[in-house]
Amino acid sequence: MTDQASVREVGLRDGLQLVRTILPSVDKIDWCRRQAAAGFAEIEVTSFVPPSIIPQFADAAETLAGARRIDGLLASVLVPNLKGAMLALDGGARKITFVLSASEEHNLANVRRTTDQSIEIFRSVVAERAARGLRDDVTIAGVVATSFGCSIQGDVPERRVFQVAQHLLEAGADELNIADTVGYGNPAQVQRILSEICRSAGPVPVAAHFHDTRGMGLANVTAALEAGVRRFDASLGGLGGCPFAPGASGNIATEDCVYLLEDLGIDTGIDLDRLLEVRRRLEDWLPGERLEGRLLNAGLARTFKPARSR
Amino acid sequence: MTDQASVREVGLRDGLQLVRTILPSVDKIDWCRRQAAAGFAEIEVTSFVPPSIIPQFADAAETLAGARRIDGLLASVLVPNLKGAMLALDGGARKITFVLSASEEHNLANVRRTTDQSIEIFRSVVAERAARGLRDDVTIAGVVATSFGCSIQGDVPERRVFQVAQHLLEAGADELNIADTVGYGNPAQVQRILSEICRSAGPVPVAAHFHDTRGMGLANVTAALEAGVRRFDASLGGLGGCPFAPGASGNIATEDCVYLLEDLGIDTGIDLDRLLEVRRRLEDWLPGERLEGRLLNAGLARTFKPARSR
Repeated sequence: MTDQASVREVGLRDGLQLVRTILPSVDKIDWCRRQAAAGFAEIEVTSFVPPSIIPQFADAAETLAGARRIDGLLASVLVPNLKGAMLALDGGARKITFVLSASEEHNLANVRRTTDQSIEIFRSVVAERAARGLRDDVTIAGVVATSFGCSIQGDVPERRVFQVAQHLLEAGADELNIADTVGYGNPAQVQRILSEICRSAGPVPVAAHFHDTRGMGLANVTAALEAGVRRFDASLGGLGGCPFAPGASGNIATEDCVYLLEDLGIDTGIDLDRLLEVRRRLEDWLPGERLEGRLLNAGLARTFKPARSR
Repeated sequence: MTDQASVREVGLRDGLQLVRTILPSVDKIDWCRRQAAAGFAEIEVTSFVPPSIIPQFADAAETLAGARRIDGLLASVLVPNLKGAMLALDGGARKITFVLSASEEHNLANVRRTTDQSIEIFRSVVAERAARGLRDDVTIAGVVATSFGCSIQGDVPERRVFQVAQHLLEAGADELNIADTVGYGNPAQVQRILSEICRSAGPVPVAAHFHDTRGMGLANVTAALEAGVRRFDASLGGLGGCPFAPGASGNIATEDCVYLLEDLGIDTGIDLDRLLEVRRRLEDWLPGERLEGRLLNAGLARTFKPARSR
């Protein structure tokens, strides 16, 4: 039996929140449709945050509504608080990714709450789902941001990451997402932390979210695979970065991540040629943005065979 | 005891052979001097090939002479044939890296000989060193190019790579260098091939040479570390690429590779701040060249500590 992994596109959320161009909803939905057609089962389509903070997501409800109509696509949305979760549920979201940070200082900067307070809010999001009778219809994932270090606080103790993950599991998280928000993780650290998280998560799936800020993105994916992770976030064209650090890069590039997995013989269900077509189109949607990712320029290796065809 | 690894700069050879700018010898030597001062023990400073083929290396003898005068630096040179080796020895080279390809078709395209014929020439280079009484003064490394696949031939059988490596060892190679010339290798393949090469090489050191053509460069370095490799080639700013594939990228970026190793707690003896100064200067030496490498833009992580300081 072929080994399998899934890649979740987060370019529309993690990528777009850091680019200058405000992409019209119609293009966002077109992007989702094309990438779903290339084989993506899940796309994080938007973020329910106040438009005053991130104007790019002022159209969160429209984008979600459009993406929900795409056949076979699970359109997940990011929320940082209860209000965002309620809006997401109002909009018919079938998967919510709730983000908090293992770094106390990052959580305070991001949502003006302590990490423990955010864990409490996670519990109220789970309760809200139950109150709406949506237990079987809506998946709630818990994202542990800055799990490998923090650009504000510095070191983040590993025991704190494990503790936060444990709280999320106990609160009823259907998935854990362990995120290297600022690109501080290295492969040894990734293998150590994610092995432990996978062990403690038991049957609950664990996803990994890496940035390629210092070039270790795919090395960290490889380390996470060894730790047992089979769900990865990635951003088309490595979209993203930090508005306060010009040139700093964003998430790992979706096309390079899919290529790595398929080349290792791990089936992603994704058609790379169709994915590269969407990647080319991204340059029209976001003129002037510096995009990353090697595969588009280099092309598939002559010797490449998709995992499924072997 | 701290784990140690060495990084050999190959930007002056593998990088420069593919850029448009002909860099004056004085700048090449300045580059070597600055990078040696940042802690590099070995730099591949030039290539003894006919200037009609690669005009960039018309000054091979001058570059070697200048680099040899740099205190504490081992200036290695690439040679593809006996004539190149003789010129290198005439010029006082203390280390020769002799390149041949495991891919028959690549070797034919590169030096118009079969791989077996190149192995014969490797023997004559070793004999030439002995005839000159330089056995204890000159190191000869055997580079096995296209060890992970070939853009001309396609697949390269692993048993052929092992066989070629074995011939080089029997012929007296002081070091093996296993090269992913076209960026086809993935971490699983790297670990499998390099574990076997390290086993069969016994006390002879094994170096790895990766290109980042499809983004897997540092993932492959990590896999090679697990296989036991502690010598890596890299090119400042990821210099290089293929003149026939615009946008295709070159070697792994030296600065990112050193950062990965140091962050993993593996001492390279290299001062990253000084290395980044040389990296900045590279933009003056090669105006208009697209340089890669993430570290320069992103900067060191706040939590980063050099291996030696822990």
